[in-house]
Amino acid sequence: MKIGLAQLNYHIGNFESNTNKIIQSIRDAKQKGADLVVFAELCVCGYPARDFLEFNEFIELCNEAAQKIAAECQDIACIIGIPTHNNKPEGKDLNNSAYFIENGQVKAIVNKALLPNYDIFDEYRYFEPSTQFNCIDFKGKRIALTICEDLWNTIENPLYVTRPMDTLIEQNPDVMINIAASPFAYNHDEERIAILSDNARRYKLPLLYVNHVGAQTELIFDGGSLVFDKQGNAVDELPYFTEHTAYYTLTDTGEITFEHQTTIKPQRDSDIQQIHDGIVLGIRDYFYKSGFKQAILGLSGGIDSAVVCALAAEALGPENVMAVLLPSKFSTDHSLKDAKDLVENLGCKSEVIAIEKITNAFEEALHPQFKNLPFNIAEENIQSRSRAVLLMAMTNKFGYILLNTSNKSEVAVGYGTLYGDMCGGISVIGDVFKSQVFQLARYMNREREIIPENTIIKPPSAELRPDQKDTDSLPEYDTLDAILVQYVEHRRSSAEIIKQGFDEETVRKVLRLVNLAEHKRYQTPPILRVSPKAFGMGRRMPLVGKYLT
Amino acid sequence: MKIGLAQLNYHIGNFESNTNKIIQSIRDAKQKGADLVVFAELCVCGYPARDFLEFNEFIELCNEAAQKIAAECQDIACIIGIPTHNNKPEGKDLNNSAYFIENGQVKAIVNKALLPNYDIFDEYRYFEPSTQFNCIDFKGKRIALTICEDLWNTIENPLYVTRPMDTLIEQNPDVMINIAASPFAYNHDEERIAILSDNARRYKLPLLYVNHVGAQTELIFDGGSLVFDKQGNAVDELPYFTEHTAYYTLTDTGEITFEHQTTIKPQRDSDIQQIHDGIVLGIRDYFYKSGFKQAILGLSGGIDSAVVCALAAEALGPENVMAVLLPSKFSTDHSLKDAKDLVENLGCKSEVIAIEKITNAFEEALHPQFKNLPFNIAEENIQSRSRAVLLMAMTNKFGYILLNTSNKSEVAVGYGTLYGDMCGGISVIGDVFKSQVFQLARYMNREREIIPENTIIKPPSAELRPDQKDTDSLPEYDTLDAILVQYVEHRRSSAEIIKQGFDEETVRKVLRLVNLAEHKRYQTPPILRVSPKAFGMGRRMPLVGKYLT
Repeated sequence: MKIGLAQLNYHIGNFESNTNKIIQSIRDAKQKGADLVVFAELCVCGYPARDFLEFNEFIELCNEAAQKIAAECQDIACIIGIPTHNNKPEGKDLNNSAYFIENGQVKAIVNKALLPNYDIFDEYRYFEPSTQFNCIDFKGKRIALTICEDLWNTIENPLYVTRPMDTLIEQNPDVMINIAASPFAYNHDEERIAILSDNARRYKLPLLYVNHVGAQTELIFDGGSLVFDKQGNAVDELPYFTEHTAYYTLTDTGEITFEHQTTIKPQRDSDIQQIHDGIVLGIRDYFYKSGFKQAILGLSGGIDSAVVCALAAEALGPENVMAVLLPSKFSTDHSLKDAKDLVENLGCKSEVIAIEKITNAFEEALHPQFKNLPFNIAEENIQSRSRAVLLMAMTNKFGYILLNTSNKSEVAVGYGTLYGDMCGGISVIGDVFKSQVFQLARYMNREREIIPENTIIKPPSAELRPDQKDTDSLPEYDTLDAILVQYVEHRRSSAEIIKQGFDEETVRKVLRLVNLAEHKRYQTPPILRVSPKAFGMGRRMPLVGKYLT
Repeated sequence: MKIGLAQLNYHIGNFESNTNKIIQSIRDAKQKGADLVVFAELCVCGYPARDFLEFNEFIELCNEAAQKIAAECQDIACIIGIPTHNNKPEGKDLNNSAYFIENGQVKAIVNKALLPNYDIFDEYRYFEPSTQFNCIDFKGKRIALTICEDLWNTIENPLYVTRPMDTLIEQNPDVMINIAASPFAYNHDEERIAILSDNARRYKLPLLYVNHVGAQTELIFDGGSLVFDKQGNAVDELPYFTEHTAYYTLTDTGEITFEHQTTIKPQRDSDIQQIHDGIVLGIRDYFYKSGFKQAILGLSGGIDSAVVCALAAEALGPENVMAVLLPSKFSTDHSLKDAKDLVENLGCKSEVIAIEKITNAFEEALHPQFKNLPFNIAEENIQSRSRAVLLMAMTNKFGYILLNTSNKSEVAVGYGTLYGDMCGGISVIGDVFKSQVFQLARYMNREREIIPENTIIKPPSAELRPDQKDTDSLPEYDTLDAILVQYVEHRRSSAEIIKQGFDEETVRKVLRLVNLAEHKRYQTPPILRVSPKAFGMGRRMPLVGKYLT
């Protein structure tokens, strides 16, 4: 039996585009002589469709798409993911389903049993879990079809009380197929391979796994669809961050064979390379799927905006990136020079708009209120916010999307100005710690100097007052980031972090800053997620909570 | 048996305050000769504690609080709500539990079975549902203790596959006690009474129900704790929007008696009165629990900022409200006069800061880029954003919290400037449609004119260009709001709304505007929730989705 795995880039709610892609893949697969072609979880509507799922019309549109797809399935079968109505009177209104379609008909429906409801996942918000499990017979083979998380209930730390494959295996299947929507994080590939390999080995069955590729606002799907033999060896892996379809033959002895060269990597890509590739795809899809082409950003001469500018140039083309230099009286000459060097290295567009007259106008207008009170964070923020007003005016006039350039360390401790440098349509490096931003710059300079060396080596500064340095307010970034990894990504408490050897006062200060900044993060743009715990939908904190503050 | 119901205002993560309140109530109850005092769901840590629950230390702090509370329970019993570790190896890490504490010991633990995971609720993110149900014997009575949603699985449209009381009733209990954390919406009181009454009638048992009161950022808990006789009649209802403790005697014949006058209302408060009272509590608690006292807002002379200003004055005292008039060259004389009249009516503080020189400075700075392109939304937004920069500067200098004044109609269709009038620490009327804002103004003027009559009767305008009216861009608010109620609150699709008799073109335009504004709403402040479907955590939409756009 010849099986195609179609790893495609869907668009939430864009039924026309998704359906056309699926139909085109079915036609290609038929030409290639495939018996079955497999698409990803909820491919018909895109993932995550969130509360669109609560609209009956949206579910009807999914159903109409499935009918169009079914009509194409003559002399070939396909598996698609689709939300369907729960037929039982009790429970949630929907199931997260897979249709097995053959000869124009839905021949079998499989419903997901294990519904992820952690981090960015909200599946129990919409779906009723399945409690019945049946294999599908097709061309003399018996298929154990499951949906994503259904294979993820690990033996060591089971998050769920059931395991669908434990029932399905009793029906003596020949192969496992799993359709997924499993978003990228820099450590996700190893975990995914390990868990799926465990399943193949435990149930002694070959396993074919199809993932989404492409970004949906903050969530990036990396693809990396996988094929395992029944010993649990990964025998093939589809490419990362790009659409791809590949074909495999399931032999009568239960072996998986294929004609192309395996793309299994002898060595995994580095975290930084994956983060880089993921962000480039994230920017590109955010713009494409929003119907925009051109980005704008403020370029300070510092490393964060430099890296964001270079990533945007790679994603959209330098001709579609407008870098605006917005010097104040506190901007240093080297900052302006570093920014100009970057613009030249990239070949992107640029403008210079000085903000001093604007900040003067604000300070004059506020003179009766501020009188002779000393310069403080109020005046610092006026600079940052004046820049945001200028960038947003350019955006409104010319149809750009403003890129936010805050890094994860800043976002964590609230080192940024709300409605100032925290503005933007999408946060590009808001899930990348400052120490990783440096690594990203070095990685992007691997062939030639794109990010000016001086931008990388100079001490970070917001340049909102004379001789300001980030370290005036914050610990050194290496220390800060190490503490933040423990608190934010590993969710360790202060006592545990201090026990690891960090200075107690520093730990308490950092955790306090993180918790006090919740109200700022609440109003910031969606952040491209590249880590297992990004700020945004995956981390939900009370604002008025009094814990570690 | 004498039972106290303690309806208290907790603060998320503020263990010291919560524990002290609970202990004080236990002491009071003992003095009153009570046998048992009942507190609300998850009272120890506050509700919703969200991802604080993922920190071990947070759960330990809950446990420490419970130990302190238990130590107070000599010669009296209490019921408290607390998150506890799930002892089974499978499933989520926590249970949403109730402790029955007697003589310093936890005598029984009840775990919640039905975990709400819709709208603003995310309980399945943290908690494993219970599957075992046992009554608690105390002083010759058998208590069927359940937690909130456990009684909400309606017969007509069951959201869950089990019903804990169906098991508990087989053990022949004498009374039902339900501890809850059920947030306010203007239609929630009737629904709550109906569902709880149904339970009392169905199981033929008296029912005592304790709710939270007080606001946690956007969520307002209205109290309204209830007592039903075994015929399902509501015999008492605790007051709304205020802390209160009341005592009841469960007689040997299973009747509920009490010595105070019942506060059951012969007629429910109007929706607008409830919204008013809820918002006042919402503002007050947001400031108090954030450790702030003073509010600032921009006062335009229009009805939205006028109503917000008056609500803030009521919540915080007029001496703690700073109204800033920020006229531009497009501001009309009557707007300035209306704003000044309001300030005088309220007795709040005010300042006038003209923005023309500032907007001129922006336009001059942008002249090389904008050249002679016509005045459009870019220049309109510069005005709105210049005001925001001024208000935030005042906030940074003097320690105010900026109040957002957008109404729900504007928020829905994106009729507002991101980083401009959409700024603020908390959105006061973002869940109140424009047509309800007029009703609110009339309600607030019920005894004397607070909101100037001219503010109420003049046609709404943003005054960002000459002779601008809201109706230049939007349908009349009565039509707009009626469509929005169907789409946002009732989640009807376009076809259903058109079928109700609305003009097709208008419906499609409105739904398109709503869906295109998701990216703006993503970055707006938390909105005090007064309806069953507010923008914010309770409504989760994709940003790059292509559905009805």
